Amino acid sequence: MSQSLEETSLSKVKRGPNRASYDKDLAFSIIDAALMCHVGQTKQGQVFVTPTSHWREGDYFYWHAHSKARNVKGPIDEPEKVCINVSLLDGLVLARSAMHHSVNYRSVTLFGVPELIDDKDEKVRQFKLFLDKVSPGRWDTLRPVNDQEIKATGVVRIKIDEASVKFRAEPPIDDPADNNWPVWAGVVPLKREWGTIEQDPIQTAHYSEPKAPDAF
Amino acid sequence: MSQSLEETSLSKVKRGPNRASYDKDLAFSIIDAALMCHVGQTKQGQVFVTPTSHWREGDYFYWHAHSKARNVKGPIDEPEKVCINVSLLDGLVLARSAMHHSVNYRSVTLFGVPELIDDKDEKVRQFKLFLDKVSPGRWDTLRPVNDQEIKATGVVRIKIDEASVKFRAEPPIDDPADNNWPVWAGVVPLKREWGTIEQDPIQTAHYSEPKAPDAF
Ligand SMILES: Cc1cc2nc3c(=O)[nH]c(=O)nc-3n(C[C@H](O)[C@H](O)[C@H](O)COP(=O)(O)OP(=O)(O)OC[C@H]3O[C@@H](n4cnc5c(N)ncnc54)[C@H](O)[C@@H]3O)c2cc1C
Ligand SMILES: Cc1cc2nc3c(=O)[nH]c(=O)nc-3n(C[C@H](O)[C@H](O)[C@H](O)COP(=O)(O)OP(=O)(O)OC[C@H]3O[C@@H](n4cnc5c(N)ncnc54)[C@H](O)[C@@H]3O)c2cc1C
Ligand code: HEM
Ligand code: HEM
Repeated sequence: MSQSLEETSLSKVKRGPNRASYDKDLAFSIIDAALMCHVGQTKQGQVFVTPTSHWREGDYFYWHAHSKARNVKGPIDEPEKVCINVSLLDGLVLARSAMHHSVNYRSVTLFGVPELIDDKDEKVRQFKLFLDKVSPGRWDTLRPVNDQEIKATGVVRIKIDEASVKFRAEPPIDDPADNNWPVWAGVVPLKREWGTIEQDPIQTAHYSEPKAPDAF
Repeated sequence: MSQSLEETSLSKVKRGPNRASYDKDLAFSIIDAALMCHVGQTKQGQVFVTPTSHWREGDYFYWHAHSKARNVKGPIDEPEKVCINVSLLDGLVLARSAMHHSVNYRSVTLFGVPELIDDKDEKVRQFKLFLDKVSPGRWDTLRPVNDQEIKATGVVRIKIDEASVKFRAEPPIDDPADNNWPVWAGVVPLKREWGTIEQDPIQTAHYSEPKAPDAF
């Protein structure tokens, strides 16, 4: 039985509660299926939203930036509960009435006070996990990371706990009175795939091709 | 010559300024190319990030929710400069060193105090523009919107002015010393398309197929 996310005054879904879930495994699967998240933070009361890449290890959600970047340094210097959303748009839901139009989606919203990872070896271990997500097997083929690079990079994490999932994955739902309205109704699914790889033009030699992630 | 976005203390790109642009037409094209954005707001000092759909008319950025939804009602009841980001992940940038890995992307960050659209006819006009973006030509085929639906829906907008664009669309850039490191380096592009449409199973009749948007 999958553990449950923590439902609090922040993470309790109010609109569309029928779309909500607090299943931790479901949250994990959505987090792992996406390469991009949006980090919300405040500075002197002003909200900022920054798109960034992320990865997960167990109950922890990780991201990175330059050690001085605001979305990493800010919540460490002035601790606050950041809000992070991970969303995947899965399809268009075309109903018979305008108001019942919607989208199919998977979405996780997380709250947590970021923790800085400042142990050198742990940072390198996390870099490898991130690389493994982005291109499995690639880490060992790369020019080894050096101290200056480790130092220049800030890695932070929050616990995946105070969070909520919302998702929609079904045909349109119209008012019954409209069910016979004569217009095509249904779902237009969004398909994503990794396209033909484009080798760096300055490379002339052939190397084994990189693996693509099963995240998008 | 395209107009320029307003570069302020909020919207001035600090990290990776070589990726920054303040070209308004470029911002418009990215906003129009995406169906999803992330709205950042605060309530009693706590930051919230909500994914939502959006549309544009001229210099204005629109979104909607239930009239009581926090991401619409909140910044109207307690005016604040919300922060909205629109991002499209375009590809993986696989370098020879771990640190120079990156992604190709298009991204717009906007700041503005939301304005409520409460004129009934204007709301309906905006619903049509939104429908036109999501499925061109569909509005006139739908069951006409009624007063109760108009009333239930909150439509807000911000001006596209205090904003910044960041984008990356090129091969990896490694330190010159690493250029001959023997590993495949380049870009894995992300391909998006609308898949085979899935008619609502409760419909038995055939209707002309909906048009898909050229946004994702
Ligand atoms: C899909 C995607 C994935 C990314 N992954 C990573 C990652 O893994 N690590 C990483 O460090 N960065 C990533 N970025 C870039 C990230 O969004 C920030 O630009 C970068 O982290 C610098 O953040 P900062 O908080 O220091 O921004 P600052 O430079 O301090 O921000 C100052 C101002 O610059 C503007 N700005 C900053 N970022 C953006 C943006 N993305 N789009 C438009 N305007 C912007 C805003 O107006 C902002 O208020 C990614 C971006 C995208 C779109
Ligand atoms: C791709 C996409 C497009 C969307 N487009 C629209 C749109 O056009 N209009 C619209 O009204 N809504 C849209 N939504 C849903 C939107 O994200 C909100 O759930 C909804 O607007 C209610 O917002 P609220 O501020 O009232 O949330 P509330 O219900 O007040 O939020 C309370 C708590 O519920 C949880 N929660 C809310 N939204 C989400 C979420 N998306 N994922 C996980 N947890 C959540 C959070 O913990 C939040 O703190 C979209 C969602 C996705 C993923
Ligand atoms: C054009 C295409 C449209 C799309 C893609 C769209 C999308 C959405 C989505 C995803 C939600 C949130 C549902 C959830 O929480 O899971 C929503 C809510 C809502 N939309 Fe739209 N919408 C569209 C058009 C409209 C129009 C034209 C109206 C008004 C006539 C409208 C009125 C509403 C209302 C009232 C809600 C709140 C439902 C609730 O929280 O109880 N939408 N919309
Ligand atoms: C695993 C794949 C990785 C991806 C997809 C990735 C992605 C990114 C992106 C998109 C940026 C922002 C660039 C911009 O502003 O346009 C960035 C910045 C940065 N990344 Fe990564 N990264 C990865 C791995 C790493 C690793 C392993 C390290 C450290 C060894 C690292 C260190 C940095 C640093 C230091 C910056 C800041 C650059 C600057 O703002 O000057 N990255 N990364």
